[in-house]
Amino acid sequence: MMKKLLLFVLDGLGDRPSPLLNGETPLQAAFRPNLNALVSSGLGGLMYPVRKGLVCGSDTSHLSLLGYDPETVYTGRGPFEAMGLGIISEPGDIAFRANFATRSKEGVIVDRRAGRDIPESGSLAKKISFTMNGTQFIVREGVEHRAALVVRGKGLSPNISDSDPHEQGKAPLKIKALSDDVGHTAEILNEYLDRIREILDTSPENRDRERRGKPPANELLLRGAGITPRLEPFNKRYGLDGACLAGIPLITGIGNLAGLHLLKHPGATGRVDTDYRGKVRAAVRALEAHDFVLVNIKAPDIAGHDGDPLLKRDVIEKIDDAIGQVIELSNDAVICVTGDHCTPCTTKEHSGDPVPVLFSTEGMRRNGVRHFDEVNCGSSGFDLLSGEVMTMMLQLSDRLKKYGA
Amino acid sequence: MMKKLLLFVLDGLGDRPSPLLNGETPLQAAFRPNLNALVSSGLGGLMYPVRKGLVCGSDTSHLSLLGYDPETVYTGRGPFEAMGLGIISEPGDIAFRANFATRSKEGVIVDRRAGRDIPESGSLAKKISFTMNGTQFIVREGVEHRAALVVRGKGLSPNISDSDPHEQGKAPLKIKALSDDVGHTAEILNEYLDRIREILDTSPENRDRERRGKPPANELLLRGAGITPRLEPFNKRYGLDGACLAGIPLITGIGNLAGLHLLKHPGATGRVDTDYRGKVRAAVRALEAHDFVLVNIKAPDIAGHDGDPLLKRDVIEKIDDAIGQVIELSNDAVICVTGDHCTPCTTKEHSGDPVPVLFSTEGMRRNGVRHFDEVNCGSSGFDLLSGEVMTMMLQLSDRLKKYGA
Repeated sequence: MMKKLLLFVLDGLGDRPSPLLNGETPLQAAFRPNLNALVSSGLGGLMYPVRKGLVCGSDTSHLSLLGYDPETVYTGRGPFEAMGLGIISEPGDIAFRANFATRSKEGVIVDRRAGRDIPESGSLAKKISFTMNGTQFIVREGVEHRAALVVRGKGLSPNISDSDPHEQGKAPLKIKALSDDVGHTAEILNEYLDRIREILDTSPENRDRERRGKPPANELLLRGAGITPRLEPFNKRYGLDGACLAGIPLITGIGNLAGLHLLKHPGATGRVDTDYRGKVRAAVRALEAHDFVLVNIKAPDIAGHDGDPLLKRDVIEKIDDAIGQVIELSNDAVICVTGDHCTPCTTKEHSGDPVPVLFSTEGMRRNGVRHFDEVNCGSSGFDLLSGEVMTMMLQLSDRLKKYGA
Repeated sequence: MMKKLLLFVLDGLGDRPSPLLNGETPLQAAFRPNLNALVSSGLGGLMYPVRKGLVCGSDTSHLSLLGYDPETVYTGRGPFEAMGLGIISEPGDIAFRANFATRSKEGVIVDRRAGRDIPESGSLAKKISFTMNGTQFIVREGVEHRAALVVRGKGLSPNISDSDPHEQGKAPLKIKALSDDVGHTAEILNEYLDRIREILDTSPENRDRERRGKPPANELLLRGAGITPRLEPFNKRYGLDGACLAGIPLITGIGNLAGLHLLKHPGATGRVDTDYRGKVRAAVRALEAHDFVLVNIKAPDIAGHDGDPLLKRDVIEKIDDAIGQVIELSNDAVICVTGDHCTPCTTKEHSGDPVPVLFSTEGMRRNGVRHFDEVNCGSSGFDLLSGEVMTMMLQLSDRLKKYGA
């Protein structure tokens, strides 16, 4: 029976020294007996997302952790923003980043963000999501005026221009083909935009906004068309039946593109109040049915973006407590714990610092790291790229084929 | 306000254990409280110039430190030797390495080095530097018989043969086109060589040499034509306004190619008697006007080539003293100190050993290195390539854009 692979991605895990934690990072400051036990029984080091000197997003980094080279398959933010807003995008879909905006009676954009505060964006998005002449249009609202549009149909191309004029005082632009192979994509989109202008102009939500003196969200400005990439299926690439357990739609969307089984755990919220123990229990259980399970826990990233090192330390302690459940899997699984990037509380943004990583399984070599944190993992001198994590897990599970004889 | 970048390249910094220093390297033996303070507040490690296993020159290494891949842009020694001799070479210039040589009355090269001892080479070089039919010829003398020729004009090509027959007893060769796109380059050069033969044959310097029984320097043998590369401007590549402060013309030349502002400090000599404090002070001041400053200090390399570990230790102590002035910049700048290569006093030549490197700025992670030297930096397990130094500094200054979302 070959060992299974269990990959924990603690989102935004790595950090920098925090004045509120006596110059320690949140991970250093956390009580983390289980992470320390795991690293002590294997290898600890640093992982560079994609390559040294990049500041990665969760999308590019998760693609790379799964072994897909983002410099080949990352087709722009459109498709991944759409996934992030919960649209399960399929290969071949065309996706746009979008703004709800305000168009005057004269047809000119007078507010590219429709006042930013648009609580009605969810119900408007539903009204402008429909199928027209066999092409499906899916709009999902984001924060404030932001949204995404996914267009699904046959023979669509992303080589088309924006409708967003990118400045106020101008009319929305006609979408144009940017190459010869675009077919009817631009026409279909212009027709769709005409249709939704009617819907948005006459919607009760916008009438109500106008009555209250707020700018109507009566235009959807589209930009940055991208095609959802077709990834080589995970099970074809590795011969492994894989699954994905993530509380946030971006990671679920990437798992879907890779052909991973999408697992759900009802208590997994993608927030700091997630059911840590239940989520890890669900992952352990999933390992019975699958060879590989990717678990993303979003909470450390949220605490990092909030600039709250004490909260980050606390969620790491909860994660450590939950991860205690996997220690007994050591004979049956290769366990890897890392992050997708650093989100230092001091900068509240992703950074290009390398992320602590550990590999643990019974019978493997140890490199003497006894504490799982940025400094101790860094002192080991062991580092690797995110794109090498899968190979490392495959090798430790003795699944790799011999190169040569 | 984003942090500025300050890069110190201590030329030839790295070394090997020295019997005269009880088996320590000059850097280990030096009193260096400021370098130790900088590394203690950040990361210490080893830097491999260009890639592991190369023994780099200052030219290839500085190109790489600035983020240009020498395997793409290094077009041969000609242009860089010319820069090293002080010709500010421009993209598109054709440059040759040259020898002053002795041609007999029969037109045969009887001494490829004209006796090596040519104190008149400077005045001869001036006499054979002129513009002819719109093409500019610039000769600059080097050590002994060595010189460089830069040819500046329209439509020139480096795909031409040498005039140097590479052995004595033969006549200088006619320069020939080596490909179809060379245009009139070979003709122009043959015409130039005919003209300067007259000048050199009849020059008072050579008549005087002959009178004193010394071989006349009446021929300029040309070899290794190369074109000065066009580098993507530094400010375009990084969005940073950059400057360069170097005491030696090779580095100034490279800075010029990268579009860096060339700073001058009157006390900077490029020798061991340079005004270390003044130079560092000038760099600190330059950081007010520029986002990035490269400072090259040549002295450690000179001591290495001289095989003098005590002198090397002493110049490092002077550099450390001068660098004390930058410690207070920690909040405003990312500071990197490294070398371009090692010049061990034991071999008196460049070696392929990695070079100590430190990165320091307020708020960054530390990796526990407390002494800046080959051994302590090596024990940290942190290493990088010279081509990663700029990215590292950009990342630590939080200037990198996010890749993905």
